[in-house]
Amino acid sequence: MLGVTTPEMAAAVSNASGLGSLPVGGLSPETTRELIRKTKGLTTAPFAVNLFVHQVPDAIDEVGLQRMQDYLEKYAQEKKLPFTRRNAPEFTFYTYQQQVDILLEEQVPIVSFTFGIPTPEIMTRLRKAGIVLIGTATSVAEAVALEQAGAAIIVAQGFEAGGHRGSFGEGQLPQVGLFSLLPQVVDAVKVPVLAAGGIVDARTIRAAFQLGASGVQVGTLFIPSTESLASEGFKDAVINAKDTDTTLTRAFSGRWARGVRNEFMSALETSGVAIPDYTLQNSLTAGIRAHGQKNGHPEWVSLWAGQSAAKARRGNAADIFKELIKGVDFAAL
Amino acid sequence: MLGVTTPEMAAAVSNASGLGSLPVGGLSPETTRELIRKTKGLTTAPFAVNLFVHQVPDAIDEVGLQRMQDYLEKYAQEKKLPFTRRNAPEFTFYTYQQQVDILLEEQVPIVSFTFGIPTPEIMTRLRKAGIVLIGTATSVAEAVALEQAGAAIIVAQGFEAGGHRGSFGEGQLPQVGLFSLLPQVVDAVKVPVLAAGGIVDARTIRAAFQLGASGVQVGTLFIPSTESLASEGFKDAVINAKDTDTTLTRAFSGRWARGVRNEFMSALETSGVAIPDYTLQNSLTAGIRAHGQKNGHPEWVSLWAGQSAAKARRGNAADIFKELIKGVDFAAL
Repeated sequence: MLGVTTPEMAAAVSNASGLGSLPVGGLSPETTRELIRKTKGLTTAPFAVNLFVHQVPDAIDEVGLQRMQDYLEKYAQEKKLPFTRRNAPEFTFYTYQQQVDILLEEQVPIVSFTFGIPTPEIMTRLRKAGIVLIGTATSVAEAVALEQAGAAIIVAQGFEAGGHRGSFGEGQLPQVGLFSLLPQVVDAVKVPVLAAGGIVDARTIRAAFQLGASGVQVGTLFIPSTESLASEGFKDAVINAKDTDTTLTRAFSGRWARGVRNEFMSALETSGVAIPDYTLQNSLTAGIRAHGQKNGHPEWVSLWAGQSAAKARRGNAADIFKELIKGVDFAAL
Repeated sequence: MLGVTTPEMAAAVSNASGLGSLPVGGLSPETTRELIRKTKGLTTAPFAVNLFVHQVPDAIDEVGLQRMQDYLEKYAQEKKLPFTRRNAPEFTFYTYQQQVDILLEEQVPIVSFTFGIPTPEIMTRLRKAGIVLIGTATSVAEAVALEQAGAAIIVAQGFEAGGHRGSFGEGQLPQVGLFSLLPQVVDAVKVPVLAAGGIVDARTIRAAFQLGASGVQVGTLFIPSTESLASEGFKDAVINAKDTDTTLTRAFSGRWARGVRNEFMSALETSGVAIPDYTLQNSLTAGIRAHGQKNGHPEWVSLWAGQSAAKARRGNAADIFKELIKGVDFAAL
């Protein structure tokens, strides 16, 4: 959960016997190394590092960029938000390829990824170094592609899940509920499958294992944790979100992601202005989002959360993790 | 499953120890009675009768009606399909209120309903006659409203489910995956909850019970049954549907429903013509759909199916039911 997860959160989960996950998608090689080292300093247990494996466009569509900046500039003015126009050459996008050397040098044991599949060369390099590779699928076809590419474990990300969809196939965005996705993915691949979306307590963990999962992935529950970077308003929005309060949107980042509906989301979506692709839109909204986070205005923040967000509670990450697995007899699953 | 379920199918499921369900939504009182009597003639076991509890509009929007008819007339001409224009007074809509006397006279033991909540008067009349009332919810708020209105059992219909969404609340259409919806509904109401959407085998039944369900509701699996009214093309479409091949659409009926993507669906949705509300649009497309069913053209049929449709197989309804529950120890759930 980039922008929410801290080294402290990932380490706390690993120290509590889970597998903490450190998101470094789109970060510079330097920041990537720094965060990994910081996490290593907080736990001796293994943790995963999560990459964004997306295509960075060769060129930015100048017309689309200026149109969105026109809109955002006016919007920011009206709402008294900061906004600085930039020209195409002023944007810097880091790629996962630039992070590979760091992962190898830092001897990261587990790398998970989303938004695509690393190149065959990189998959091979990481695997040869003994790194366990975890891919993210939102459809059976994506799961099969990940297995064929050498993923050792696949996360089946249900429609319920908060944050960005891991989707990378062609055509319409897969929107398959976990109850349909998980057993069909389990039947289609031989590697272990982790369930993501709606995992909030012992019964949901047991149900996921019944559907064939070998493990679960949990995000939203940790947003209100003490170790989280989420602002108090973001934490409140998650805890107070009813089952129907989240939706998929491209407004904040240019990629489909699930979050609590808010003012910025509906403004962008009803504006009629075409939303540039990820990661350009993400860069364009960064200042507004940061302002919202800092000044306690959740209406300008991407309030990523899943459809079971209402089950989240404040507390430290270790306690949230313990509460999550309370009553689960993993040996019996 | 109106248009798919037959008395033979409902009776076969009841005879196999399930609870068969006979859909009579929108049918005339006479047809309603006839179908109930036919089902009674095929089983002595209890079966449920399913109603559509929707508001029939006081008046038809003439402009909208003519615009859609303009479109459909041209479309039908191009595709060599039958289409007969009608004026507003020529449409007959039956209401669930007109079916209540029949249900009482026929001493139906169980009535399930969708698209809304019957009036307090009707709820009371049915309950006083000893009829078990089963309501359909697509959100926690709808489930709570159903319980308050006196539903004895609530179906939690996940986003995965095929066919019409049972939604009846104000605002945006609830689109909550079963994995999030079911446990949150179970926590919010005291009455038993049935899980709908993605139920296809023993593991999915066990998972639903893990999430708190007291039973499951199954539709799509029975579409390819021998007893089904679905054409061979419809049956094939269901069996061959991948996890991502269905979508929600208003094209066929004016109400949101999940079906396999086809030519008619995308034509209507990209036409830019406003789709009249249910049940008017349903009446407008009836001739085209019937033609498609009869002549083996699934591209003109509403191919209602859930996201786990790929698990469906041909066979008789009793065998499909036995296969569904094979390996489930209900006493242990």
